[in-house]
Amino acid sequence: MSRNRGVVYVAPGKVEVRDIDDAKLQAPDGRRIEHAVILKVISTNICGSDQHMVRGRTTAAPGLVLGHEITGEVIEKGCDVEMLEIGDIVSVPFNVACGRCRTCKSQDTGVCLTVNPERAGGAYGYVDMGGWIGGQARYVTVPYADFNLLKLPDRDRALAKIRDLTMLSDILPTGFHGAMMAGVGVGSTVYVAGAGPVGLAAAASARILGAAVVMIGDFNPDRLAHAAKVGFEPIDLSKSDRLGDLVAQVIGTDEVDSAIDAVGFEARGHAGGEQPAIVLNQMMEITRAAGSIGIPGLYVTEDPGAVDKAAQQGSLSLRFGLGWAKAQSFHTGQTPVLKYNRQLMQAILHDRLPIADIVNARVIKLDDAPQGYETFDQGAATKFVLDPHDMLAAA
Amino acid sequence: MSRNRGVVYVAPGKVEVRDIDDAKLQAPDGRRIEHAVILKVISTNICGSDQHMVRGRTTAAPGLVLGHEITGEVIEKGCDVEMLEIGDIVSVPFNVACGRCRTCKSQDTGVCLTVNPERAGGAYGYVDMGGWIGGQARYVTVPYADFNLLKLPDRDRALAKIRDLTMLSDILPTGFHGAMMAGVGVGSTVYVAGAGPVGLAAAASARILGAAVVMIGDFNPDRLAHAAKVGFEPIDLSKSDRLGDLVAQVIGTDEVDSAIDAVGFEARGHAGGEQPAIVLNQMMEITRAAGSIGIPGLYVTEDPGAVDKAAQQGSLSLRFGLGWAKAQSFHTGQTPVLKYNRQLMQAILHDRLPIADIVNARVIKLDDAPQGYETFDQGAATKFVLDPHDMLAAA
Amino acid sequence: MSRNRGVVYVAPGKVEVRDIDDAKLQAPDGRRIEHAVILKVISTNICGSDQHMVRGRTTAAPGLVLGHEITGEVIEKGCDVEMLEIGDIVSVPFNVACGRCRTCKSQDTGVCLTVNPERAGGAYGYVDMGGWIGGQARYVTVPYADFNLLKLPDRDRALAKIRDLTMLSDILPTGFHGAMMAGVGVGSTVYVAGAGPVGLAAAASARILGAAVVMIGDFNPDRLAHAAKVGFEPIDLSKSDRLGDLVAQVIGTDEVDSAIDAVGFEARGHAGGEQPAIVLNQMMEITRAAGSIGIPGLYVTEDPGAVDKAAQQGSLSLRFGLGWAKAQSFHTGQTPVLKYNRQLMQAILHDRLPIADIVNARVIKLDDAPQGYETFDQGAATKFVLDPHDMLAAA
Amino acid sequence: MSRNRGVVYVAPGKVEVRDIDDAKLQAPDGRRIEHAVILKVISTNICGSDQHMVRGRTTAAPGLVLGHEITGEVIEKGCDVEMLEIGDIVSVPFNVACGRCRTCKSQDTGVCLTVNPERAGGAYGYVDMGGWIGGQARYVTVPYADFNLLKLPDRDRALAKIRDLTMLSDILPTGFHGAMMAGVGVGSTVYVAGAGPVGLAAAASARILGAAVVMIGDFNPDRLAHAAKVGFEPIDLSKSDRLGDLVAQVIGTDEVDSAIDAVGFEARGHAGGEQPAIVLNQMMEITRAAGSIGIPGLYVTEDPGAVDKAAQQGSLSLRFGLGWAKAQSFHTGQTPVLKYNRQLMQAILHDRLPIADIVNARVIKLDDAPQGYETFDQGAATKFVLDPHDMLAAA
Repeated sequence: MSRNRGVVYVAPGKVEVRDIDDAKLQAPDGRRIEHAVILKVISTNICGSDQHMVRGRTTAAPGLVLGHEITGEVIEKGCDVEMLEIGDIVSVPFNVACGRCRTCKSQDTGVCLTVNPERAGGAYGYVDMGGWIGGQARYVTVPYADFNLLKLPDRDRALAKIRDLTMLSDILPTGFHGAMMAGVGVGSTVYVAGAGPVGLAAAASARILGAAVVMIGDFNPDRLAHAAKVGFEPIDLSKSDRLGDLVAQVIGTDEVDSAIDAVGFEARGHAGGEQPAIVLNQMMEITRAAGSIGIPGLYVTEDPGAVDKAAQQGSLSLRFGLGWAKAQSFHTGQTPVLKYNRQLMQAILHDRLPIADIVNARVIKLDDAPQGYETFDQGAATKFVLDPHDMLAAA
Repeated sequence: MSRNRGVVYVAPGKVEVRDIDDAKLQAPDGRRIEHAVILKVISTNICGSDQHMVRGRTTAAPGLVLGHEITGEVIEKGCDVEMLEIGDIVSVPFNVACGRCRTCKSQDTGVCLTVNPERAGGAYGYVDMGGWIGGQARYVTVPYADFNLLKLPDRDRALAKIRDLTMLSDILPTGFHGAMMAGVGVGSTVYVAGAGPVGLAAAASARILGAAVVMIGDFNPDRLAHAAKVGFEPIDLSKSDRLGDLVAQVIGTDEVDSAIDAVGFEARGHAGGEQPAIVLNQMMEITRAAGSIGIPGLYVTEDPGAVDKAAQQGSLSLRFGLGWAKAQSFHTGQTPVLKYNRQLMQAILHDRLPIADIVNARVIKLDDAPQGYETFDQGAATKFVLDPHDMLAAA
Repeated sequence: MSRNRGVVYVAPGKVEVRDIDDAKLQAPDGRRIEHAVILKVISTNICGSDQHMVRGRTTAAPGLVLGHEITGEVIEKGCDVEMLEIGDIVSVPFNVACGRCRTCKSQDTGVCLTVNPERAGGAYGYVDMGGWIGGQARYVTVPYADFNLLKLPDRDRALAKIRDLTMLSDILPTGFHGAMMAGVGVGSTVYVAGAGPVGLAAAASARILGAAVVMIGDFNPDRLAHAAKVGFEPIDLSKSDRLGDLVAQVIGTDEVDSAIDAVGFEARGHAGGEQPAIVLNQMMEITRAAGSIGIPGLYVTEDPGAVDKAAQQGSLSLRFGLGWAKAQSFHTGQTPVLKYNRQLMQAILHDRLPIADIVNARVIKLDDAPQGYETFDQGAATKFVLDPHDMLAAA
Repeated sequence: MSRNRGVVYVAPGKVEVRDIDDAKLQAPDGRRIEHAVILKVISTNICGSDQHMVRGRTTAAPGLVLGHEITGEVIEKGCDVEMLEIGDIVSVPFNVACGRCRTCKSQDTGVCLTVNPERAGGAYGYVDMGGWIGGQARYVTVPYADFNLLKLPDRDRALAKIRDLTMLSDILPTGFHGAMMAGVGVGSTVYVAGAGPVGLAAAASARILGAAVVMIGDFNPDRLAHAAKVGFEPIDLSKSDRLGDLVAQVIGTDEVDSAIDAVGFEARGHAGGEQPAIVLNQMMEITRAAGSIGIPGLYVTEDPGAVDKAAQQGSLSLRFGLGWAKAQSFHTGQTPVLKYNRQLMQAILHDRLPIADIVNARVIKLDDAPQGYETFDQGAATKFVLDPHDMLAAA
């Protein structure tokens, strides 16, 4: 009898919490792997990218166990795990990475060459990312554990900040990667597209990197209100279809030093309909000459639910000539979490990065995950954290 | 009576060599400028980007004096020119740059903020680039001379290598910028799209940066033959519409470390017609995960002659989702020549970079410029160098 | 009759405020320079490096007008000043730089090749730095004004923050350069040697760069108390001769990610005597393997007052083998202020960097400069700002 | 009965080839390690740093099996080796690195934190580097094999270039690291101190990085003659005690862009005696302002055989004030071979880097190692490659 239980994608618009297989020291193909550990999951968050699957915008098959934002405790380990002990509390980067291939050795763990036979890059609980079982569950397996896992300090310090530390598995590094790719530095003026959790994490990252002003644009009034509350300049996109004008109202000029796209392919235009290229085109307009544009927001190679045939194949109509005339650069891709998580953990532990409050973290029971998905999908200004063993409630 | 004479754009498809105004120490708006010098032009090259104007693919007005690839001798200087003397032989970066604005101070001289009231970035003899008079002429004015000009060594050494050194004003740094943006380093496998002069310069740059293999793709058999002759691996694009297969025939794998687009918006597809996005889309396919794509080839904000309405506004249908999935980055824009020309000059002077032979430089008289334009437009594997004072013929 | 008046070095230990020559649009050699402006000095600070001269630790000749930390208003300009207008409020980088030589073009304005015939690098009011007249005065000349000067926003905003903005001319960028050279980033643990103004500026810089913890070491209890008051971790060097132990008391380990030497050659050891190499040797001990050490503190090529013959020639006994075994890197030199001041200004204007409070700025009259020098020399935890036109008193 | 045999340090000045223990899948502390492989050694080179031990300049104990430059064939592997197969031909980086600690994840494998209990950084067959058994032997164990080993292409291609590929384990990346740390780029003027194998590898690296001129300084006429023969500019240090003058004879100016110290702590002065700081001090003199100095040459924390007490503790008298005045940076430490070896392998395989000829590789039998050590110690312009299984003789 399995003691495991997790969030399962059942059909477009529907997830359920079900009993699932026990976590084992094995790879998706069934091989035993001595470099793996099994974790008791302490916290695991619902991510905007999970929503793409749940909305049916991907080819994810029913039965997939969701979840790639995981923090846990080591309860079992293979014989080639040398740097972790049973009982260690660890943060799991959402990327599955081997630490042994060319890209991993260059810190590009987001496009590991070996953990996914289909393409570069693996992840837990995600379609087309290698078949690694998701971690919105009570237990989960993590391969290449010595390489992948970030050990948190002792249990007490970890649990005391667990609402913040749980963001190390994905959205905080993802926002940070966006800010780094956009070249944010001390004194920068920054525009972040999208006031969801990744947008807020990007804004928080820009701030700790020393940005002078951080603006966040969205249509959602609740999210804008929350962004303002935690210290960012809200840009209400419903006010004008000329983003530069809105930016100029804040900083006196219609161009910023750095822009971050935290929206991705499900972008909407001013008129309301889906316009997958609109955010990228706006970034080119409002970013200064010689500036960089960071694009952590997800763009896909196939989108069955897209508005037109081009977008269904991942093709977008970009005003590339504008970007070229401004000598801009464009930086994309899954975040290599390992490149950043240790330093971000330090910032959290030393009270410099109150990310839980910034993204408005809300802890719910594992069994309440379906409601969490639904509320989040409706645009709640909230980041849901699942608590499979009732350890956070107490913390 | 003027002693000046230059190449003038007359109508689509037509240039003429005419008497033009004397060069003066003044800006396009007529102000006297003490930071300028007047050069006797020693050599000045015809550039592929001149062709865009001459073909009528821009809004250039008849009467425009062409030419932005200039090497010359200082014959007059303003009172605030301190570091140059009459008689100095100098290379002129094609970008007009002030050296005093924010972007110039950061070495982004390709998007100087002050020399062009319309947009960031200025150039000589080019539409929309600030009205600076072109240098395919006997004499030309260079503003901010201490900042802009690269002094060549003594006259004898300069003239001895003038066919190479003349490439410092544009195509060599432009090719080099492409290679740098693409992250070319020691041992890299590199693909260059386009076997014209900029493509060859990019290939030469990749080689001196230590690339293991440099491939160049084109449809033009003469250009491919020349590329092979100077040591690069030719890729005949007419052989297949799957570039990866052609690449694999050379290096055993269908992805390269670095790719450089030296074609730009007038790209053609395998079927023959113009397909402005095809090169960019191919770059995403054949560049490895986490790789960089350098795009020195020109993309424009407006193209009256484009195949469709989107392209007329500089919009291209890009498979951006593919690039995102591979975590690629895209680097664009006019080359900041000053960032590279001094070091490239050193390489030339020390016999490490035989760029004249690589691009197949051919010296012709100023008065023969119209034939040069025509031959070049037909795809000759040649870089034309004009010799307004018959100084190279002798060299 | 001159209307100018400035602080003059008279003899070791002695400065006086005297009438001095009017500022003119001319270079130290008497040539008229059209790229210069004359400033009415709004604020000008006393710097620790001035003390080296005043203490007689250099070869500075009596009569030298001191002062290289200058903020002012443009009251006259040469004919080749294009980007500044009479009335503009500007910050002056302490480095005199031409903006036209190789090092300036690479942003290394601290070692400009043309403004000082003796060696690379120029400054105002400093021995061996090119003879440019100092700015602890009512009026001062700034050459290459378009390049050197940072225009502050309108007069009202500038004067409202003048106590902060006056730090842009030297110590804030110098501290920031120290932090950048030391590789400080988000989450870093940082040790700063020296709690004087540059040390505090380095600490403030580390904080805005995202450091998790910033420690400052000194022997001076007032300075340590002030450092603690503005939020840094004070390290009382009198408590132990093992710096690692003191560091471990704060962060639990005896090594930091980044170390910054804000002391320089007049360093003292635990026993009390001058030990010019002690800070550098401590940095190697407490910096982690593969770490960087930033050394904005001044080391000199000749020190007539040094404790031994080796130090008199600028030679120090360094435990270089230790640094090598730890694969450390060492970064030195005058700060290139222009590389950083624009962004730091933005941070100040947007209330992110309260540098005046952090360094404990205190405004005094120009005529009170001698007392300022004396008090500062005694180790006061204060940064003195001179106010030659009584404009700050009012602000 | 052991089938293994290796080069053993017996006493100062003496090595012997002896039977040694069989290679096993175990760590120095005797633990079985499933991440290890056993290699049949194909080639293994004698290194200048071995000489430090053999000369008695370290605390190496008699009985130590020497050798850290190893290329071999996988003949046995632990159960957690996933990416290598029996029969693969591999290059071994001299650094032992775990691939799982903070520094390894940042590509700083030269200072791995876990493979050596004494300090950061491990190596095979070297005193104080973790006790890993040396590879101047017939068989050797390599831990963390998937991470550490660089797989060479198929056996035929590997053996065809084995004299070059054998340099990937240490001296080629070490020279390359020196050039990278020194900031060598296209068009650089470069000075390399020391014409031994690492100096030649640094020079070769500078050349493939695009350097315009590469000078190598030494006292040894044979080494200088060899350096000249393979295309570098020899600098005969016996001709003058003013290095700048010698440099100026080659390039017309007494400063270079980049300098590389390939000598280390056993440096000698013009007068003949050992002067451990002389090379570092010369580097500061001849490197340009704002230049970088790469220091791959070994400096030690303890040197029992040093000329004075300070040097015995690794302290050197450096003219640090000079370096500071020139705003130089200094980069030290063991090379992280993994950062470079894959790309250098590509360059070798594509005939761009004939390193064997450049360092004058000479293959000898394993049993002839003692003569190799002796000849090399006398300053032969030769790099000795041991051939334990007579596989190279045939190649």
